[in-house]
Amino acid sequence: MTGASGFIGGHVVDALLSQGHEVQAVARHAGMARQAVTWHEADLLDPGAHEALTGAAQATHLIHLAWHVAPGSFWSAPENERWIDASLRLLRAFGEAGGRRVVMAGTCAEYRWDGEVSSERHTPLAPTTLYGACKHATHVAAAVMAEQLGLALAWGRVFFLYGPGEHSDRLVASVVRGLLAGHEVPTTEGHQRRDFMHVSDVARAFVALLDSQVTGAVNIASGLAIPVRELIMLIARTVGEPARVRFGELPPRSGEPELIAGETARLTDEVGFRPTIGLREGIGETVAWWRAGAGAT
Amino acid sequence: MTGASGFIGGHVVDALLSQGHEVQAVARHAGMARQAVTWHEADLLDPGAHEALTGAAQATHLIHLAWHVAPGSFWSAPENERWIDASLRLLRAFGEAGGRRVVMAGTCAEYRWDGEVSSERHTPLAPTTLYGACKHATHVAAAVMAEQLGLALAWGRVFFLYGPGEHSDRLVASVVRGLLAGHEVPTTEGHQRRDFMHVSDVARAFVALLDSQVTGAVNIASGLAIPVRELIMLIARTVGEPARVRFGELPPRSGEPELIAGETARLTDEVGFRPTIGLREGIGETVAWWRAGAGAT
Repeated sequence: MTGASGFIGGHVVDALLSQGHEVQAVARHAGMARQAVTWHEADLLDPGAHEALTGAAQATHLIHLAWHVAPGSFWSAPENERWIDASLRLLRAFGEAGGRRVVMAGTCAEYRWDGEVSSERHTPLAPTTLYGACKHATHVAAAVMAEQLGLALAWGRVFFLYGPGEHSDRLVASVVRGLLAGHEVPTTEGHQRRDFMHVSDVARAFVALLDSQVTGAVNIASGLAIPVRELIMLIARTVGEPARVRFGELPPRSGEPELIAGETARLTDEVGFRPTIGLREGIGETVAWWRAGAGAT
Repeated sequence: MTGASGFIGGHVVDALLSQGHEVQAVARHAGMARQAVTWHEADLLDPGAHEALTGAAQATHLIHLAWHVAPGSFWSAPENERWIDASLRLLRAFGEAGGRRVVMAGTCAEYRWDGEVSSERHTPLAPTTLYGACKHATHVAAAVMAEQLGLALAWGRVFFLYGPGEHSDRLVASVVRGLLAGHEVPTTEGHQRRDFMHVSDVARAFVALLDSQVTGAVNIASGLAIPVRELIMLIARTVGEPARVRFGELPPRSGEPELIAGETARLTDEVGFRPTIGLREGIGETVAWWRAGAGAT
């Protein structure tokens, strides 16, 4: 797997190990050692890295999560462009080294955001962000490459997520930390509805997808969209500071659609996965994690 | 421009010069010198090449035709995968060097081949060949990059073509040469209908697109699809050897659709371009070119 030291990746390692998988992970720098995981040191952006890596790993399955995801800037960072080539080189090297099944991380930002629930079968793919475009470009090429290489490829489109270990600049983490620190927290009006899933459910969905025979695009979504305002109110009540949120103090992001949510029939019926962590429980756990100072460093 | 030494590219150079454009062209090796064209030596597959190239050229417009197009193998050659990254690096470097307008070559193989006429507006993009997938992946990323870079990007989807200078292994050239050499020429039954355009019209369509303000995908197609059998019969009658073609001796290619043709409303009405070389005239000229031994080397 790649991206094992990332937000989703860390939880995927846990989910893989708990399912009894033998895990090999790639990192740019060693020193990430962790029990029961074999680490390979490689820079996936180095064009020469992939064959040596897949040759050494001799893996049957691949979960590719690594990408440029710096909070705030990742939607439009040119670094996204390099991850198309890195992902395709990894895919070909894995196929040529005898790999059998691949799961890669896509995004809800591949869809045309037209205010409807996004369906893998019916919704047009028309990304408007560079992040979404580069992810979708990768899938377009990877799908045909996998066919040619005899690989089974599934493409998990991630929607919105939160949970312990989230980067402190991302929505839920930043609201939790701001409130815990006693600050006023400015937000948008927050009427837009989003499909949020706990990162541990997202990770288990990826592993379920890996363990299934399903190919093609699959939404990694809960099927439940709530107004961001309600999510933030839930956080504020959980922290015990409902009065400190300043709704409407931030302007809405331009081009922000009213609804981003994913159809879940493929994930539920074909992969057989259902999320198990409700928002109340998940936010409670996340607030407790931050309160315990686990994210202090 | 890139790909200036290729089949379409050579004709694009002529069309650009005849329109009074100042032309700068890229080639891997110098020695391609040609009157009125400034040549730059660069390997577009070298990740470090693009900034130096666009910095030196200081061009306002870019036509990017270079790609891996070895006859026979190009549909599934892994080299296609490298041209995604090469094209995107070129695009970003061009935009950052102050470029204004870009035309890139796409392909009819980006469309789902469902037996209908392919429309830029309505036909789903669902390539099944690696060539088509890598071209489409490039467009997906390039469209959003261009937006971000403030570049006007048009994407010319090439259908079928023929004419003087064609590689001798491609359909029309190989039939012409086989018949001129006095051989029997085995072909498929040839009932499939295809939209063929003379390479010189294709080249002038690219230049018209460059000179227009049109952005997005535009089919470079004639709008007229004829059975491949009829095209081959036309060649055979032109050569004077109608009896030497052996229809049905080659099996049909698997997955070969009955019709591949492009809607031409955008090219005709928005770009204002119409092809001027009919098939009879174009095949006559092509046969004469091969007969004169121009392609002997």
